[in-house]
Amino acid sequence: MKTLLLSMKDVKEALSIKEVISAVEEGYIAYNAGKVQQPDIVSMEIPEYNGETDIKSCYNKLNESISVKIASLFSNNGKDSDLPTMIGTVLLFDGKTGAPLCIMDGSLITGIRTGAAGAISSKLLARKDSKTVAVFGGGGQARMQIYALCQVMDIQEVRVYSEYQKELAKYKGDGEENTRAKVVLCDTPEEAMKDADIAISTTPSKKYFVDKSLVKPGMHIVAVGADMAGKNEWDPEIFRDAKVVNDSIPQCVSLGETRNAIVSGIITEADIYAEIGQLLAGEKPLRERDDEITIFDTTGMGIQDNVTAARVYEIAKEKGLGEYFEFI
Amino acid sequence: MKTLLLSMKDVKEALSIKEVISAVEEGYIAYNAGKVQQPDIVSMEIPEYNGETDIKSCYNKLNESISVKIASLFSNNGKDSDLPTMIGTVLLFDGKTGAPLCIMDGSLITGIRTGAAGAISSKLLARKDSKTVAVFGGGGQARMQIYALCQVMDIQEVRVYSEYQKELAKYKGDGEENTRAKVVLCDTPEEAMKDADIAISTTPSKKYFVDKSLVKPGMHIVAVGADMAGKNEWDPEIFRDAKVVNDSIPQCVSLGETRNAIVSGIITEADIYAEIGQLLAGEKPLRERDDEITIFDTTGMGIQDNVTAARVYEIAKEKGLGEYFEFI
Repeated sequence: MKTLLLSMKDVKEALSIKEVISAVEEGYIAYNAGKVQQPDIVSMEIPEYNGETDIKSCYNKLNESISVKIASLFSNNGKDSDLPTMIGTVLLFDGKTGAPLCIMDGSLITGIRTGAAGAISSKLLARKDSKTVAVFGGGGQARMQIYALCQVMDIQEVRVYSEYQKELAKYKGDGEENTRAKVVLCDTPEEAMKDADIAISTTPSKKYFVDKSLVKPGMHIVAVGADMAGKNEWDPEIFRDAKVVNDSIPQCVSLGETRNAIVSGIITEADIYAEIGQLLAGEKPLRERDDEITIFDTTGMGIQDNVTAARVYEIAKEKGLGEYFEFI
Repeated sequence: MKTLLLSMKDVKEALSIKEVISAVEEGYIAYNAGKVQQPDIVSMEIPEYNGETDIKSCYNKLNESISVKIASLFSNNGKDSDLPTMIGTVLLFDGKTGAPLCIMDGSLITGIRTGAAGAISSKLLARKDSKTVAVFGGGGQARMQIYALCQVMDIQEVRVYSEYQKELAKYKGDGEENTRAKVVLCDTPEEAMKDADIAISTTPSKKYFVDKSLVKPGMHIVAVGADMAGKNEWDPEIFRDAKVVNDSIPQCVSLGETRNAIVSGIITEADIYAEIGQLLAGEKPLRERDDEITIFDTTGMGIQDNVTAARVYEIAKEKGLGEYFEFI
């Protein structure tokens, strides 16, 4: 049988943010409908090379496919070699036979499916008249969040704060070109939060930098950066009176920004309003008041990789991208 | 960068049992020297298609590579399609950068590295004058055990018992051709055990079929079949006075034939003599008397896949096998 191979270039050509947003929505709904098996994340640390390799796997009963994403972060890359620091490979298997359907570069999958997650949450929870967005962090994920958000809302101004000025410069050119929103580079978190309707955080910070006093009534917060115990971007006090939505409650409680609010004793797990799949399935009301503060905490799920890879595979076949190889 | 792709045919051409035996020995030694990270096995069950997909991963500090094996067993295959029931893919990554070095068909890897494990144990623990081997099960793994054993010992007669007569017929032609030993097809376990110096079990049995009365002093037993709780091929009483060696004590205690002897109260974990890597490293004496009964219980480890795949990759490069694809 033939297995389709897709390079980073092929994946880039097949991926459109719009398609991924619709795929991730389907994935969240499948997860909450009990149609998804998502084993624990496997993690190997390779401290001698400043590296880490994680494996996220998933069986999705709805599209009858099994996905395995092997994602590595080797921080020395780019110095000794010209390899990127993040390298990923995604394999897609037929859930009816176990046959390898497609092996694709996975470098772009994580970024775009995480961007899609943030955009989906804003579509559901942000005020419809949101125009201004604050973004923390100036890396690839920060930009991806904005590209995705601009697909679903009419954003006029993007206010970016990053500790790293070099990243920021890149953001301005790239960001304005891709989103048609005005990009304002800010010197402080306070400046970034000025007039913001939506705020998105994408940093690896271990100490929060957004104080509760900066969060206005009616704001929607997308907390992306915290994906392991010890990471923290937001004052946990913000969670006290907010409507808190998670991608996966068990994951966010142990790894996400939600964890910090629980560990601080500000909320308990019972105070979490919903998983996002429940909102997409219409099981609970969305935003109920204009002055409500809503928070979406996302730690990332194997089902997002699954549905994104499955969509890439379908589109690549339609467009005739990639090459085939017969493993068996 | 270029990733090497190897089909089942390429892997078959690159693999030699001799090479795999030496690789697996190195792997066992690395494991016992604390040079190996071996995360828990990931398992997804797909009952609607009578399928299961397992992921075994490993970082080996000695060869500085990360391996991920995705192995599926879909029992309906071969009926609705001409796909094999067992399908596997093995990925090998550079442990210094996370770069994907090689993706190979994994269908043959599990069989040959398991065969190598049994042969290594016989080389270490069986009587040097062993001539006759009893084999339970007539499938691919039964044959692989014999091929590997015949590389390390001068076996004259192979006595096979299987519930499935069809498998047996295949064994006779194939087995004699590949091993130059006389193959005797037996109607009962008792007949197979007659005059046997070594006995190897490779069945999925859930109820033991070899009684203690059939095990003579001086015999070496290789217990391959039991790899999950509930599987059982040997009368647990055999463990009472035997020298018990495991591939991995934690795995064998929870998943292997050793588990049955412990659960029955016949031995405790403290009675296990050693892990095989300790014997290879010369940390403990091997067989000490001609009338000693020795047992090697193997449940299969990620490190065996790692070293086997790494050896296949090296040989394939030398021989110019496979094709290259640039994922990144």
